[in-house]
Amino acid sequence: MSNFRIFKQVPRLLFGENSINRLAELVPAKKDPKDYYVFIIDDVHKDSNIVSRLNLTNADFIEYFPASKKEPATYQVDEIKERIMKEKGNQKPISIIGIGGGSSMDVAKAISVVLCNEGSSSLYQGWDLVPNPGIHKIGIPTVAGSGAEASRTAVLMGKDRKFGINSDFSMFDAIILDRTLIKNVPTNQRFHSGMDCYIHCVESLQGTMINELARGYASKALDLCELVFLADGDDDMLMTASYLGGVSIVNSEVGVCHALSYGLSLELGYRHGYANCIAFDVLEEYYGPYVEKFRKMLKKHNIVLPKGVTKSLDSAALNRMVEMTLRMERPLTNALGENWKQILTPDKILQLYARM
Amino acid sequence: MSNFRIFKQVPRLLFGENSINRLAELVPAKKDPKDYYVFIIDDVHKDSNIVSRLNLTNADFIEYFPASKKEPATYQVDEIKERIMKEKGNQKPISIIGIGGGSSMDVAKAISVVLCNEGSSSLYQGWDLVPNPGIHKIGIPTVAGSGAEASRTAVLMGKDRKFGINSDFSMFDAIILDRTLIKNVPTNQRFHSGMDCYIHCVESLQGTMINELARGYASKALDLCELVFLADGDDDMLMTASYLGGVSIVNSEVGVCHALSYGLSLELGYRHGYANCIAFDVLEEYYGPYVEKFRKMLKKHNIVLPKGVTKSLDSAALNRMVEMTLRMERPLTNALGENWKQILTPDKILQLYARM
Repeated sequence: MSNFRIFKQVPRLLFGENSINRLAELVPAKKDPKDYYVFIIDDVHKDSNIVSRLNLTNADFIEYFPASKKEPATYQVDEIKERIMKEKGNQKPISIIGIGGGSSMDVAKAISVVLCNEGSSSLYQGWDLVPNPGIHKIGIPTVAGSGAEASRTAVLMGKDRKFGINSDFSMFDAIILDRTLIKNVPTNQRFHSGMDCYIHCVESLQGTMINELARGYASKALDLCELVFLADGDDDMLMTASYLGGVSIVNSEVGVCHALSYGLSLELGYRHGYANCIAFDVLEEYYGPYVEKFRKMLKKHNIVLPKGVTKSLDSAALNRMVEMTLRMERPLTNALGENWKQILTPDKILQLYARM
Repeated sequence: MSNFRIFKQVPRLLFGENSINRLAELVPAKKDPKDYYVFIIDDVHKDSNIVSRLNLTNADFIEYFPASKKEPATYQVDEIKERIMKEKGNQKPISIIGIGGGSSMDVAKAISVVLCNEGSSSLYQGWDLVPNPGIHKIGIPTVAGSGAEASRTAVLMGKDRKFGINSDFSMFDAIILDRTLIKNVPTNQRFHSGMDCYIHCVESLQGTMINELARGYASKALDLCELVFLADGDDDMLMTASYLGGVSIVNSEVGVCHALSYGLSLELGYRHGYANCIAFDVLEEYYGPYVEKFRKMLKKHNIVLPKGVTKSLDSAALNRMVEMTLRMERPLTNALGENWKQILTPDKILQLYARM
């Protein structure tokens, strides 16, 4: 019998130019003077015209999240929750709106969870550990590629690991896909984030834990990525690729690249998309033709990846990275089968890291 | 600003072989002895092993719907509702499960609506006319192609027109896509229903009311239809095509073929997929290369469409068909632009019907 997980989807989407102006159609209406929304906004947008289009009121709680500094962490989520509850006298918001890339959206998801569940967000890292439904939440990507808008996952850095909250209650109730929000993303960030989509589609399609429905999403997202990064595909296509790729990955699994890139983020603090690019570039052995195509994309967009990034790390750090990778059992099973430990040994992992 | 409708999606899906056995994971649990489910099941399955897998209890209300006879009608929906309420002493079910093709699923959707809204189902034919949320409902296609599993629409024959209930409350809460359920569909029905998907994807992609996201769904569904009907695509692909095509059409619009096929169904009682095939075969002028490909599919599957189907109709019947077609303003605007009335005149419609 099929043992695929229940395929979860965001039930409501708004798509198209300036659809962010229609946020009010998706958000629950304020009925009481105490009602308020929480906005988690990537701090690069602090003085942008995105914020001016949100109809913020004094009652709303605005958090500018420093997403470009490093990967979001559980302690940050916990701290923001504390501040919200303190400022609002324990009154919960009626909706949380996450605006930014994967990090800001993931923080919004995680705050939605911890506002309705006791204790630290680190308690809920794992699969289906969240007992109570979270606050209503909306995701609005301003960088495309992570697929966080489509997924159940809120990836957070803990003390010694990078790990996702994966729950039906960490999924957005609605999302807005508005291409005008991604038009000013710097070239490098646009590329790294777009490649996050490309890479997880490759891992999904090349893995064993996929079905025809998820394949439909992943292959369409992959085609669109290629149109965007190797031909003349536009921002609507990139937005669509990010969303469809995200849906696919909710319902399949990543692979070797994500397993290695988590180690890079853990010890070097690299952002997820960037770390994925660095890792993917040494994975010809597993994803040959796609790595070739990825290098064409790098060239076309004049993106130069650093080399020797793990040289400065001591053996303790490298060991933590190997351990982080070995924890990624499901992605590695997806990529390499049940015997993955015989294929991706600690030595092999170190060799791969050494080439990055 | 974007004026696309809010893109609605079924929030939970189960995909894969024998996933019907996992229905209990999707249906609300019975908590009270009075709790029951309503099953609307295409009567071709009456003695099949599909029914034996449903764990039906004596408390449940089972309706075998004669879907193969003709298009479902508002009076049938109203009559089933009356019987349910009478038999159950006005206690409503906690879920309605529609099992069959588009007709049986549409009847399930419509019953969900009328159980929570006063009066006849005919009152709700139109767009967003349903005030109260319907009963929880699940769709399980046993014929692939209509996309009814993905859509907000419950198409019903009224006294003088075929028309859909289109509401957020006529959308399934969950669906099951299990290829084992479609393996015994007769060749002709499989073809006609599959072509419903192919044709509405063509209409969607060739129309003006589409965006990149809906295009992603429609083009993937179209590719899968071609793999299934012109190459060696399998039933998982057909299930996926039907679903993705349905999602696309919720978020774009059909075209000339559907506008004409509704007339055929109204006067000749033809099932939707069959009527679409007959109409599409004369639409080279609008969908040239796709009609060519459709004819290749007909040939490959040894499907022979009837000719001269409108010859026996009197002018009153033909006029009703023309009127039915002219009512399809949105599809015809999608296909032919704002000036569609100058292109698709009553004379032109009669000429097209005469060629069928």
